[in-house]
Amino acid sequence: MQMPTPDATILARKDQIVKRLQAVLPDGAVVHDPFETRAYECDALTAYKCPPLCAVLPASTAEVSAVMRVCHEEGVPVVPRGAGTSLAGGALPTADSVILGVARLNDVLETDFANRIIRVQSGRTNLSVTGAVEEEGFFYAPDPSSQLACAIAGNIAMNSGGAHCLKYGVTTNNLMGVTMVMADGEVVEIGGAHLDAGGLDLLGLICGSEGQLGIVTEATLRILAKPEGARPVLVGFDSNEVAGACVSDIIKSGILPVAIEFMDRPCIRATEAFAGAGYPDCEALLIIEVEGSDAEIDDQLSRITKIARAHNPVELRESTSAEESAKIWLGRKSAFGAMGQINDYMCLDGTIPVSELPLVLRRIGEMSKDYGLDVGNVFHAGDGNMHPLILFDANKPGDLEKCEAFGADILKLCVEVGGCLTGEHGVGVEKRDLMVSQYNQSDLEIQLAVKDVFDPNWLLNPAKVFPLSSTETRRAS
Amino acid sequence: MQMPTPDATILARKDQIVKRLQAVLPDGAVVHDPFETRAYECDALTAYKCPPLCAVLPASTAEVSAVMRVCHEEGVPVVPRGAGTSLAGGALPTADSVILGVARLNDVLETDFANRIIRVQSGRTNLSVTGAVEEEGFFYAPDPSSQLACAIAGNIAMNSGGAHCLKYGVTTNNLMGVTMVMADGEVVEIGGAHLDAGGLDLLGLICGSEGQLGIVTEATLRILAKPEGARPVLVGFDSNEVAGACVSDIIKSGILPVAIEFMDRPCIRATEAFAGAGYPDCEALLIIEVEGSDAEIDDQLSRITKIARAHNPVELRESTSAEESAKIWLGRKSAFGAMGQINDYMCLDGTIPVSELPLVLRRIGEMSKDYGLDVGNVFHAGDGNMHPLILFDANKPGDLEKCEAFGADILKLCVEVGGCLTGEHGVGVEKRDLMVSQYNQSDLEIQLAVKDVFDPNWLLNPAKVFPLSSTETRRAS
Repeated sequence: MQMPTPDATILARKDQIVKRLQAVLPDGAVVHDPFETRAYECDALTAYKCPPLCAVLPASTAEVSAVMRVCHEEGVPVVPRGAGTSLAGGALPTADSVILGVARLNDVLETDFANRIIRVQSGRTNLSVTGAVEEEGFFYAPDPSSQLACAIAGNIAMNSGGAHCLKYGVTTNNLMGVTMVMADGEVVEIGGAHLDAGGLDLLGLICGSEGQLGIVTEATLRILAKPEGARPVLVGFDSNEVAGACVSDIIKSGILPVAIEFMDRPCIRATEAFAGAGYPDCEALLIIEVEGSDAEIDDQLSRITKIARAHNPVELRESTSAEESAKIWLGRKSAFGAMGQINDYMCLDGTIPVSELPLVLRRIGEMSKDYGLDVGNVFHAGDGNMHPLILFDANKPGDLEKCEAFGADILKLCVEVGGCLTGEHGVGVEKRDLMVSQYNQSDLEIQLAVKDVFDPNWLLNPAKVFPLSSTETRRAS
Repeated sequence: MQMPTPDATILARKDQIVKRLQAVLPDGAVVHDPFETRAYECDALTAYKCPPLCAVLPASTAEVSAVMRVCHEEGVPVVPRGAGTSLAGGALPTADSVILGVARLNDVLETDFANRIIRVQSGRTNLSVTGAVEEEGFFYAPDPSSQLACAIAGNIAMNSGGAHCLKYGVTTNNLMGVTMVMADGEVVEIGGAHLDAGGLDLLGLICGSEGQLGIVTEATLRILAKPEGARPVLVGFDSNEVAGACVSDIIKSGILPVAIEFMDRPCIRATEAFAGAGYPDCEALLIIEVEGSDAEIDDQLSRITKIARAHNPVELRESTSAEESAKIWLGRKSAFGAMGQINDYMCLDGTIPVSELPLVLRRIGEMSKDYGLDVGNVFHAGDGNMHPLILFDANKPGDLEKCEAFGADILKLCVEVGGCLTGEHGVGVEKRDLMVSQYNQSDLEIQLAVKDVFDPNWLLNPAKVFPLSSTETRRAS
């Protein structure tokens, strides 16, 4: 992974920059000891590492603003960091950058049940947003797998989704407004406790912008009433194609389950060995969950199982108790861990039209043979968001590179069939150079020019999202 | 309404410009006779009129591209026009502009039930999108009151909503991708039949951008399965405050009806006299509709009527047949026409947090007395989208100006209580000068700078959305 050459003049001014940051923050909020800054050298894409110049941990919008003013005046790049759970290297530092961690921005500022909103500081973890409203019967819908750890700031940066986003949408569908600190320290409010305002939709632009446009410090989020109940059904098939066709038929019928999860044989086997969830040993497995009152659940599941039976499943197991439901989900939730037990793996994230599932799964199988690397597929099939896990051996020379090439081929295939490079993990450094397979030069120029408006000196989250060549030219100019 | 001074050099070159446009379009697709161009002199905000230089009616993306190339080379402003149903003057021409009407772009390009999408040309009317999929049991959710006439192009430009958007979201929540012709004629694809792609969310930026960034010629839209059934309940109250509190309590309980419509006494009386829907003569009336299977409907309505009864309604009428349902909706759907029978009216569009309904309705009542102009309120109460109708006499000197001042005060009040200037009609020319009450100069500068990226010569839909002073400076530079 090529990263930009650090700016030697910044490295030389480290002491001065640290001193200026310390002057605007409370004691202990600037981490600059080279041993301690190693805690920030990578995120969940651990293949790439680089300790930052220093890290700051502000606890308020005013403190974030003060940090940004200093960095703006000193011309120092800033890498915003949520909880560091990015699988795309979205928070990877450069040696000349300041990591701006939002971990201390974790307060609930307001809950307003009459308007179904909650306002939180952006460092608050996803699950603790629900924690703040669940006693009143509400929840925050987007549910990334990392929801126990990941921060709302990162969810907004990556427009994160999760297993239940088929029904409830991703972050952008649940975000009402933000308080954002601009590159020069100015504080702006965008959106709020109301519908779409007039003028250009800057909130939509900011959601998913991966820290390229500003630092979100507070967020107004939509909360929803908890459904009365939920129930999964597990369906096993003897081919990926048939399972894919079953997903297509369910979506086509107009039923909207809250989740349709898909696992293929390599994943099922690994999971079963690891978690013993009692999954059948078959080619492909769907977990379909519906929500509502008992009557609604019965009605939806009867229509879903009717469609599934038409595809000759080798197993069809409707949960009849909370214990059975938990067991059905146990395997799915252990899948990543289970694959990690077998070998190192790279988790991809691409999106395709649901109807292309059978074709894409077949092509991935063929590529797996060509590359000689195993791949397991576990993904949110209802909305076409795939997470192929490619297994490789990090200690075997050349294996990582082979894995990266295989991953790139899969993502290019996603684009080819009418999908895109990412569903919920974002581009980060991981997919930056693949952006040219989705966008032509003039598409990219427009995006770069919009970035220019918000961050004219290109100091925000360097070397991410856009091909390195474009950003290097930009920053130099 | 102040409009920019037309560019005399463009007026002088009219023949040459018309000739060049005729050269790239089929016979009859360029309307330039001064008598015929009057058909395009205004949209549904008929208080303001100005015939354009000429109008073009292209029938394909390639023809739109050819038109834009000519206009780009000639430096002629272009005003995109859907069906001309804008209540905010979003398609008001300037004398030196070419009206680009999308009426001939009305084909269905693709229906794809497996992926729940339809791809249409942008001039297709909203209702005929549903028409193309309803036999298979699907529909397109956003339902502006003008849905029989209004075009998808205009829906995208204004991020249009409708009575049923409380449940299904507005246009931006149902738009998957667009084909757009840029100011210089280049054709780009943004989004598509997949979830959010990487990089900046340009699709979100374009939706609601009121023709400021490009000409959308094709759109990929999300379609949904039709619910099994729907049923409204009508509830009358003896005060606006209590009706408002009832709406708040329903939303707070977490129930999500498909629509909550609100009418106040002036509206109820006018409607009753006009349509004879059998409404009770009370201060405020709610129409609450829920959807689903019979069991779901029964369950939701029993919870809603329980909440409503706690507010001592003067009338509570649950529909028991399709005829009764139609009659309940008849009044609401006739409300605008009914008010128009009494007098000229101006229909406003502002949004507030639902919990502020009682306060805002009281303040509007007070202002009505101060201005000496009657006002009727009919609106989408569930999501706080208000449509106050101010009655005035167009033949009485000074009445229109008084009405405009009253309207501006109401919209400023919406912003004050945490809402915004528009819910679904957009800014257009109508609310352009009010943008400064929602945004400060630096907020606006960011929006203008983003517009610069897409339309550096400021030729797209002039004099809309932004305060005239900002755009004049921009265009001159």
